Amino acid sequence: MNQILTHPSLELIHLNKLYNSPNYIGGEMIIIMKMNASENDLDAVITRVTKEGFKTHISKGEEVTIVGVIGDERRLDQGAISRMKGVDRVVPVLRPFKLASRDFQPEDTKITINGHVIGGNKIIVMAGPCSVESLEQVMETANVVKEAGAHLLRGGAFKPRTSPYSFQGMGEEGLKILAKAREETGLHVVTEVMAPEQVGLVAEYADILQIGTRNMQNYALLNAVGKTNVPVLLKRGMMSTIEELLMSAEYIMSNGNHKVILCERGIRTFEKYTRNTLDINAVPVLKELTHLPVVVDPSHATGKWTLVKAASKAAVAAGADGLIIEVHPNPAEAVSDGEQSLKPRRFFELMAEVRRIAQAVERSI
Amino acid sequence: MNQILTHPSLELIHLNKLYNSPNYIGGEMIIIMKMNASENDLDAVITRVTKEGFKTHISKGEEVTIVGVIGDERRLDQGAISRMKGVDRVVPVLRPFKLASRDFQPEDTKITINGHVIGGNKIIVMAGPCSVESLEQVMETANVVKEAGAHLLRGGAFKPRTSPYSFQGMGEEGLKILAKAREETGLHVVTEVMAPEQVGLVAEYADILQIGTRNMQNYALLNAVGKTNVPVLLKRGMMSTIEELLMSAEYIMSNGNHKVILCERGIRTFEKYTRNTLDINAVPVLKELTHLPVVVDPSHATGKWTLVKAASKAAVAAGADGLIIEVHPNPAEAVSDGEQSLKPRRFFELMAEVRRIAQAVERSI
Amino acid sequence: MNQILTHPSLELIHLNKLYNSPNYIGGEMIIIMKMNASENDLDAVITRVTKEGFKTHISKGEEVTIVGVIGDERRLDQGAISRMKGVDRVVPVLRPFKLASRDFQPEDTKITINGHVIGGNKIIVMAGPCSVESLEQVMETANVVKEAGAHLLRGGAFKPRTSPYSFQGMGEEGLKILAKAREETGLHVVTEVMAPEQVGLVAEYADILQIGTRNMQNYALLNAVGKTNVPVLLKRGMMSTIEELLMSAEYIMSNGNHKVILCERGIRTFEKYTRNTLDINAVPVLKELTHLPVVVDPSHATGKWTLVKAASKAAVAAGADGLIIEVHPNPAEAVSDGEQSLKPRRFFELMAEVRRIAQAVERSI
Amino acid sequence: MNQILTHPSLELIHLNKLYNSPNYIGGEMIIIMKMNASENDLDAVITRVTKEGFKTHISKGEEVTIVGVIGDERRLDQGAISRMKGVDRVVPVLRPFKLASRDFQPEDTKITINGHVIGGNKIIVMAGPCSVESLEQVMETANVVKEAGAHLLRGGAFKPRTSPYSFQGMGEEGLKILAKAREETGLHVVTEVMAPEQVGLVAEYADILQIGTRNMQNYALLNAVGKTNVPVLLKRGMMSTIEELLMSAEYIMSNGNHKVILCERGIRTFEKYTRNTLDINAVPVLKELTHLPVVVDPSHATGKWTLVKAASKAAVAAGADGLIIEVHPNPAEAVSDGEQSLKPRRFFELMAEVRRIAQAVERSI
Repeated sequence: MNQILTHPSLELIHLNKLYNSPNYIGGEMIIIMKMNASENDLDAVITRVTKEGFKTHISKGEEVTIVGVIGDERRLDQGAISRMKGVDRVVPVLRPFKLASRDFQPEDTKITINGHVIGGNKIIVMAGPCSVESLEQVMETANVVKEAGAHLLRGGAFKPRTSPYSFQGMGEEGLKILAKAREETGLHVVTEVMAPEQVGLVAEYADILQIGTRNMQNYALLNAVGKTNVPVLLKRGMMSTIEELLMSAEYIMSNGNHKVILCERGIRTFEKYTRNTLDINAVPVLKELTHLPVVVDPSHATGKWTLVKAASKAAVAAGADGLIIEVHPNPAEAVSDGEQSLKPRRFFELMAEVRRIAQAVERSI
Repeated sequence: MNQILTHPSLELIHLNKLYNSPNYIGGEMIIIMKMNASENDLDAVITRVTKEGFKTHISKGEEVTIVGVIGDERRLDQGAISRMKGVDRVVPVLRPFKLASRDFQPEDTKITINGHVIGGNKIIVMAGPCSVESLEQVMETANVVKEAGAHLLRGGAFKPRTSPYSFQGMGEEGLKILAKAREETGLHVVTEVMAPEQVGLVAEYADILQIGTRNMQNYALLNAVGKTNVPVLLKRGMMSTIEELLMSAEYIMSNGNHKVILCERGIRTFEKYTRNTLDINAVPVLKELTHLPVVVDPSHATGKWTLVKAASKAAVAAGADGLIIEVHPNPAEAVSDGEQSLKPRRFFELMAEVRRIAQAVERSI
Repeated sequence: MNQILTHPSLELIHLNKLYNSPNYIGGEMIIIMKMNASENDLDAVITRVTKEGFKTHISKGEEVTIVGVIGDERRLDQGAISRMKGVDRVVPVLRPFKLASRDFQPEDTKITINGHVIGGNKIIVMAGPCSVESLEQVMETANVVKEAGAHLLRGGAFKPRTSPYSFQGMGEEGLKILAKAREETGLHVVTEVMAPEQVGLVAEYADILQIGTRNMQNYALLNAVGKTNVPVLLKRGMMSTIEELLMSAEYIMSNGNHKVILCERGIRTFEKYTRNTLDINAVPVLKELTHLPVVVDPSHATGKWTLVKAASKAAVAAGADGLIIEVHPNPAEAVSDGEQSLKPRRFFELMAEVRRIAQAVERSI
Repeated sequence: MNQILTHPSLELIHLNKLYNSPNYIGGEMIIIMKMNASENDLDAVITRVTKEGFKTHISKGEEVTIVGVIGDERRLDQGAISRMKGVDRVVPVLRPFKLASRDFQPEDTKITINGHVIGGNKIIVMAGPCSVESLEQVMETANVVKEAGAHLLRGGAFKPRTSPYSFQGMGEEGLKILAKAREETGLHVVTEVMAPEQVGLVAEYADILQIGTRNMQNYALLNAVGKTNVPVLLKRGMMSTIEELLMSAEYIMSNGNHKVILCERGIRTFEKYTRNTLDINAVPVLKELTHLPVVVDPSHATGKWTLVKAASKAAVAAGADGLIIEVHPNPAEAVSDGEQSLKPRRFFELMAEVRRIAQAVERSI
C-alpha cells in the first residue's frame, strides 16, 4: 500500500505511544537490540520477523545492533516483539492511521450540507442551545443564530450528563423539535447520538451526527455511525491525544463513512481557571496530518462565556474550518451549560469580529 | 433524604467542578453575590430560589452578601443561578453522589462471587491474559493463576482497541472459552462488555461484567449493566476524577444494581516513562468516600511488567481490596499488552510477596 | 483596602487551591462547619477568628452552620482554621493577588521601551535566536528581524539547560554581543537572567530582564529583579496555573518594580505531539484578571516551526499584546531549539500574516 | 566511555523528549530520512555526522533510508540534525544521564548521616514541622518524632511561598533553632536552601540540604550545592518527569557532590481531590534507573493528613528507602501546611504500621 507515506514535515511518532497502543499498521519499523543481546537473541528476532513476511536489514554498531524491518503493511505486533529476549525497543516508521491521513489523500475533504461546504474556503458556524428544552426556546435561538449568520443549528436531544440525577435530554421529542426548527428556518441540524441503538433514530432527524467527547473511544458507536452515510462531527476526547482522535476517525472511515468532521473542544489539564484548555495547536497539527475538516468548540473549550469570543477568533486565525458555539436566549435559565452560553446580542458581536478575522486569513464566513 | 451527610473528614467539593458538572443533588448551597450587586439582583435570586422550594439565609458582609440556601434535596441548577445578574458564584455543601456515598451507607459493601468475598478482609486476586486467544492459552493461564492462589480468572473476549486494524477479540467464542475454563478450574470469570446490546450475551457467561476505562462515561452502557444483577467491575477513566468515577458508579446503582467494584487502573499524566500513573492516593480516598470495594490494576497502571510487583504491593499496603493482573504463559507471543503481562513464574513471586504485605495490614489473601 | 474588589465577571477562586497555597490576603471568607460540629467547636472557631481581629456572621442551616468572616485584609491562615475541630472547609471570597489585579488598577499598564509601548494598541514583536552563538549570528538575525518589522531583539546569553553537558550559553560575552547588536541596529534587547547574583550584570546590558519558565517560582530571583527598575518579562511556568503566574508577578511588584510583562509560553499536558500546549485561553483570562501586558511565545508553545505562524496569529486574535519568537539564520546549525526556530524568509511571511490579524482586531504592529 | 550502557530492562527513551531537551550525551543514534529525501540530502547528513567524528551505517529500506550513527560520546546535537533537509527524525540509543545512572554504577549509593545509612536496608524516616516557628515548637516536635523512631529532623527556616504576603520563614534564626534541637535530641537536620547565596549559611547548620520542588531546575542552585560536600535531598518538580529529576541530580553530581537523595513528592495532575498525585510508580522506576537513594514525601504527595499513613505504607511496600513526613504538635495552629501535618499520636500509629510493612519487605526501620 504505497500511498501510506510518512508526511514529510512530521517527524515523530511517539515511542512511548507504542506501549500504549501497539497497533501500528505500517510495515517499516526498527528493532533496537539490547547491548548484551546474544547472537541467538538476534536470530530469534530475525526468524520471527521473517516468518511474518517481512524482510530485514541488520546494522551492527559498536555497542548495539539494529534490525530494520521492511515489507508491506501486514500487521506486526510491536508489543510482542519488544518483549522478545534481547530486544531493547521497537520504533515504527509509518503512522497508525491511513484513511484519515493526508499522505493517503493529499487534497482536503469537503462535506456539503444544505449547500454549505465544510472544509472549503468558507468558515462554517454551527450555533444553538446546549440542550433542546422546548419548541419556543429552539425556534427563538434558531431565528437568532440564522439572522446572525450561522449556517447550521446545534442542539442536544440526548444529553450525556455526569450525574444520573441531571436532566438527560428530551429524547425523540427533542429531535422532532429540531426537525421543526429546520423546516421553519432552513438551518440543517447537528445533534448528538449516544448509543449504537440510537443511531437509526437520530439519523432520521439529524443532518450531522455528533459523537461527544466521552464517546470518542466508544467503538461500538463509532462502528455504528460508520455504517451510515450521514456526516459525523467527531469531538476529541477531553483526555485523548491528537493521534487517538485520528484513530477514532479511522474507525468510522474504515466502516465506509468518509464524511468525518473533527472537533477540538478543549482538553483536561492542571489549569482549572477554565473548564478545559483549548488546544489551539491541534488546529494546525490536524491540518498537517489529515485531510478532514477541523472545527473548534470555543464554548466547551473555555467553559465561560466571557472567553468564547477570543477563543473563536483564535480558532479561525489558526486555520479552523468552522466553529460550534452555544447560544441561548436566556442563559441564566438554561437547564445545562448556562455558564458558557452566549446571549443573542453577544453572538452577533462575535460573528462580526470573527468575520474580520476570516477576511484576514482570506476566507469568508 | 437526611442520610446524605457530608462526611466529617472530607472538606472540599471542588468549586471549579461546579462549572464542569453542575449537577449537584444536595439541597444546601451558598450563593455569593458580587460586590456591586444591587438590591434588585439580590431579590431576584431570593425569589427564584424560594420559588423552587428552598429557604434562604441572608448574611450581609461589609463588601459581599451571601445567600445560604437550605432545604430538601430537590434539584437546583447552580449553573443557571451562577449566571443570574449580581451572582458571583455558587458553592455547594453536599456531595453529588448518594447511593455510592459512605455517608449514605457507612458499612462496607461486600460482594460474594463463588464463595470469595470482595470488600471483606481477604485480598481478592483476579488474574489472566489481556485477550482470550485460544482455549489452550486460557486453560494454561487459568491453571497457573489458580495454583498461584488467584481467586478469579480475567480475560478479554471483546477488546476495545485504539486501531480498527488491531485484533478486536474473539467475541462469543472467547466467552465460551472462558466458560470452559471456569468449568475446568472452578475459577469464576471477569470479562469486559463494550456495548449495551452485548450486555445480555456477556452476562450469560461472565460472573463479573467489566466496564473498561474508555467506557466509564458511556452512560447507555452504565444504564444497561445497572439493569442486570451481575456484579460490575468499573474501571476509572484514564483521565477521570475520583468524583466522576463515583458518579458513574451512581449511574449503575441508580438503575438498581448495587454490586459495583471500583478499579483504579492508572491515570494519564505528563509522565511518559510509564504507560499510566498509578494514582495510589485514590485507594484511601475511595475508602473514605464510598462503601464500595476498591481494586487496583497494576498492569495497566504501569504498563511494564518490571513494575507490576512493586505496584501490587503498594496497592495492598494502601488498603486495596483486590488486584486484577495480566498474566500470560508467553508474553512475547501475546496479541495484546505483552509488554505488561507477567510470566507465570513472576506471578508466583508476586503472590508470595503480596501475601506478606497482606499479613502486614492484617488481611489474608 | 477597599480597592481589592472581586472582579465582577470572575466567579471562582478554586477551593482546592486553598489547600495548595493557603495564602489568601483577602479579609472575607466563609467557614463551613461539619454537620456533626458541636456548639463548642463553633465557639472555638468564633473565638479564634475574633481574636485575630475579624468579625463574624453566623448562619445556621438545617444541617450545616456557616461562619462568615468579615474584616480588613489582615492575614488569616485558612489552612489552620480548616484544621480546627468541627470545621468542614473554608472558602475565600477575595483574590490572593492585589498589585497585579485589574480590580486594584483598572487601566492597562503600559511599559515603554525605546519608544515602543508594550500594553498599548501596538502589537510588539520580540525576535531573535534562542542562544547567542556569535556576533555574526546575532548581527545577521538582528538585521533580518528589524527589516521584517520586529521591535526588540531576543537572545539568550545565560541558558537554562536540562543537561549539565549541554551548551550553557556564552555568559557575559553573549551580553556584550547583544549590546553591540543594539548599538548597530537600534533594537533594544530582552535576555534571560537565571540567578539573583547575575541580576546586576545582566541589567547592565539588557533592556528587559527575562525570567524563564523554570524560574517562575524562584523567589530569590523574583525578589532580586523586583528591586531593579528594569522591565521584567515573566514567563509562565510550564507547570504553573494562571493564578500562580500572577502571584509571581505580585512578588516582583511587591518589591517595587511594577514593570512586569507576562508571557504565556505553553503548558505541559498529556498531548505529546507538540512540545507544549499553548494555553490560548490564558490570554483573555489574563486580560480580565490583570492590567499587566500579556505576550505569547509561539516557539516554545508549539516546539515546531511549522506551527509557529498559526500560533502567532491565534495569539494576536485572542488579544495578546505581543509575541516573542525564535528566529535563526540557519536553524539546522542552531546550538539549541533549532527545531522550533524560523528561517528569516518564514519570519517575513509570519509578520505579513500577523499584521493582517492585528488590523482585524484594530491594532497595529 | 564504555560504562554508559543501556540498562537491559529499560526500553524507551522518549522520542518526543528529544525535541524538549535535545541534550543527549550518548554516542549512538539513528537518523531516519524522509521518504522523499534525495541522495544529496543523505550525503549532507553523512558529511555532517562524519565531520563531528562519528561513523555511519546506512540501511536503505524500500521506502526509507536509515543512518546509524556510531562513535564515542562526543556531543551531537539532534535538534540541529533533525532540522536538516531530508531528515524525518532522530532517535537516540543511550540515556542522557550518566553519573546518576545505574548502568554507570550498578551498586546502590549509601549515604551515612549520624550513623544512619540512607540507601541501605533500613528505612530512614525524617520528620518534623513544615516551618520552624519557635524553639518550643521544634523541641516538642523533635522529642516526639525521636521517641516514635524517626532518624532525622526536618523543618523549614527558609520557606518558598506562592504569595509574597505569606510567612517566609524565620531564616537564620530558624536554622539556629534547628541546630539547638539537634544538640538536645541528637537528631540530625534536613532543611531547605532556596538560593545560591544561602548555601554557605544553610550548610553551616544543616546535615542535609533540601532542594524544593520549585527549585528542581534552578541550575544556579544545583551547581552551588554540587560544590559542597553536604548530602542533598532533591525533590522532584511537581511537574517534572523522572528523567528530568535524574538530569537535575546529574547537575549536582557533575559538580563533584555525589551524595544525592531523590525525593518523590507528588506530581500535578487533573485530579484535584488531593493536593498532588503520589507517583508511586516512580519508586521502582528510579530503583531501576539509578543507584541513588529514593525517599517519598507522603505529606505533600497527598496534602491531607488522613491519607498520609496509607501513602507511607505504599511507599515502603513499593521499595522506597525512606520517608519525609510533616508532624506538628498542634496542626490547627501551624503557620503552614496544617492541613497535611500529623499530630504526634497519629505519627506514632504511622510508625507502628510502617514498621510492619518494612518487615514484610525484609527491611528494618
